[in-house]
Amino acid sequence: MQIIDGGVTSPKGFMANGSHVGIKKKKKDLSVIYTVFPAKGAAAFTTNVVKAAPVLWNQKIIHERGNIQAIVINSGNANACTGEKGMQDAMLMAKTAADALNLKTEEVLVASTGVIGVPMPMDIICPGIKQTIEGLGDSREAALMAAEAIMTTDTYPKEIAVSFTVQEKTVTIAGMAKGSGMIHPNMATMLSFITTDLNISYELLDKALKESIADSYNMISVDGDTSTNDMVIVLANGAAGNDLIEEENEDYEVFKKALHYVNSHLAKEIVRDGEGAGKFIEVQVKGTKTKEDARILAKSIITSNLVKTAFFGEDANWGRILCAMGYSGVQFDVNHVTIEFRSKAGKITLMEKGLPILFDEELALKILKEKDIQVIACLQEGEEEATAWGCDLSYEYVRINGDYRT
Amino acid sequence: MQIIDGGVTSPKGFMANGSHVGIKKKKKDLSVIYTVFPAKGAAAFTTNVVKAAPVLWNQKIIHERGNIQAIVINSGNANACTGEKGMQDAMLMAKTAADALNLKTEEVLVASTGVIGVPMPMDIICPGIKQTIEGLGDSREAALMAAEAIMTTDTYPKEIAVSFTVQEKTVTIAGMAKGSGMIHPNMATMLSFITTDLNISYELLDKALKESIADSYNMISVDGDTSTNDMVIVLANGAAGNDLIEEENEDYEVFKKALHYVNSHLAKEIVRDGEGAGKFIEVQVKGTKTKEDARILAKSIITSNLVKTAFFGEDANWGRILCAMGYSGVQFDVNHVTIEFRSKAGKITLMEKGLPILFDEELALKILKEKDIQVIACLQEGEEEATAWGCDLSYEYVRINGDYRT
Repeated sequence: MQIIDGGVTSPKGFMANGSHVGIKKKKKDLSVIYTVFPAKGAAAFTTNVVKAAPVLWNQKIIHERGNIQAIVINSGNANACTGEKGMQDAMLMAKTAADALNLKTEEVLVASTGVIGVPMPMDIICPGIKQTIEGLGDSREAALMAAEAIMTTDTYPKEIAVSFTVQEKTVTIAGMAKGSGMIHPNMATMLSFITTDLNISYELLDKALKESIADSYNMISVDGDTSTNDMVIVLANGAAGNDLIEEENEDYEVFKKALHYVNSHLAKEIVRDGEGAGKFIEVQVKGTKTKEDARILAKSIITSNLVKTAFFGEDANWGRILCAMGYSGVQFDVNHVTIEFRSKAGKITLMEKGLPILFDEELALKILKEKDIQVIACLQEGEEEATAWGCDLSYEYVRINGDYRT
Repeated sequence: MQIIDGGVTSPKGFMANGSHVGIKKKKKDLSVIYTVFPAKGAAAFTTNVVKAAPVLWNQKIIHERGNIQAIVINSGNANACTGEKGMQDAMLMAKTAADALNLKTEEVLVASTGVIGVPMPMDIICPGIKQTIEGLGDSREAALMAAEAIMTTDTYPKEIAVSFTVQEKTVTIAGMAKGSGMIHPNMATMLSFITTDLNISYELLDKALKESIADSYNMISVDGDTSTNDMVIVLANGAAGNDLIEEENEDYEVFKKALHYVNSHLAKEIVRDGEGAGKFIEVQVKGTKTKEDARILAKSIITSNLVKTAFFGEDANWGRILCAMGYSGVQFDVNHVTIEFRSKAGKITLMEKGLPILFDEELALKILKEKDIQVIACLQEGEEEATAWGCDLSYEYVRINGDYRT
């Protein structure tokens, strides 16, 4: 697998564009991804009971397993809590794109992010979709513009592309995403769009995506809130020319690894760009009986406000970490727990076999002064492990989220 | 039921004292509650897998259902993550009090709160227990001193006493508590001790306590973290002279109501005194299918960082409230949701039948400028309801919890 300089247009047959159509005052606010060849689509959506209209539309389309050829995404308005009108607007977005691209409405997916409870300005959006489609291209620049137009309070666009070989064919996977939690004062929406030219069955595309998500997007936390609009979509158009992958063979494994690299990269970028996030914290939990235990423990640590404020304060507070493990719901023997901190400045063990050990406070402070910090918690109860990513809880977080409308 | 000016010494036969023995630099740090007559004890303990030594000791004693005659409580050191030595120290605290009071070690409960991972200074604590026991009294002042000595970063002692009549006898219930979450930079421990002179069976004492806790201490949230040391203990010594209550009759109902009043009062006081808490938020969720649904929804709203920062920012952000309901895990139809804010300044409806409604922004700001705010979310799906209490998330919270050791 090779990392290449690229975006969603890197896989063969994909085009994109992003433009300013007027939903937001100045910044780009509308993206289109288009594949010349009909693609298979797999997706994961927010588990929030309150689902925005585009989520409901896409769920139906993805469930029916028809061909997908385009995704239309707007920023500036989430089309959430907009009732029956919101559903009509989501469909109208799909229809407008379908008409311009000579597709069926059911071949177009829709995503929205931004303020909620406000009707969509369709008089601006519909001509905007046509205009954006007219500018579709397959250049590096086209992908970047699409990645820029889905941003809300993200400070930079998030893109990635990798290539690998299957049956002597070069296959490319690329993706773009916008940030979650902490970042977005109103709703904290995470959107991620993955394109690939691999030829693969629906079943395996879906399976690979679901497995990857469990250890990428689902393992990041900025403030623990789950949005009404979250979604991850992958489109596979088969243009690489490999024989259809329909078994979990070696080719599938290669693809799965590359897909997970793309998803993990985008997930971590989302955390790094969390507004108010001063530090990037990686939590590794090792030695649990089950994978799920490791995930729950790592998430419990990274979502604890007391842990997050301790990192903001650069305080080597192992007690809060152990406490967050303790109330996670996972059963474990505290006498087996080891807790370690690492960063570029070095590594230090704070707790061994459930007991705090005297540590070099000066070294601990040096480690915690870094922007990237690793927490490693070992349980010695099994062989499973998981990693979660998050950030500290800063004054800036309170400012951004407290002062939003005032 | 009558609220009286009193504390844990108000019920007949109870004595108490609180003193400075030297665990903390200057402030009182050791409390003893003593009942002249053997009492039945019921308790609830932290659900954290990591349990401090005093919790383990008390669980054993309470489980055995023997008579209880004293509780020894220290602040300044939590005796948590202290290994085998910690267990020995907890027992030594009980034994020291038992020797001084001529009791069996198993008749004494123990509680600790403060820093974790540091061995207990038993050379100070043992003589301190004896000295505190020498000063035991049944005065109003004695109760206050006991309430003061369990404080950590609480800004005021939390006490309550009520009396009511059972079988023409006056019965008294009183309690003292110390704060949770947000308050304590290191561990966020909540301790509550209830005394009563009612004559009641173990089974019903335990049942009344458990039911009350589910709607009092378990419905407050300051930062969502559950400590290693949390506990609520109730002692009933029967000195009021009523016939033993062993059925869920009218007498039991009167007691249950009074006990719940005491617990709810102390729980709310804990939230009000959360350091960094600028506003006291009450969340009522109504019209759910089950009581548990209502509890989960109310807790999900009050623990959301985005909701909490919105209240800090005095922002009428119904979207964050609906979102927190949506990811709570409870299934409901968003088209039935009504959201309302209330305070001394008035009331305002922000969402009706799942759709936002235009509201008077000026009135909303007036309501949110108050220190005490109510959020009422109605679902129209059933007849159940629950209330949770919490506070905003402020710069002060980040400062206290971030700067603790630096």
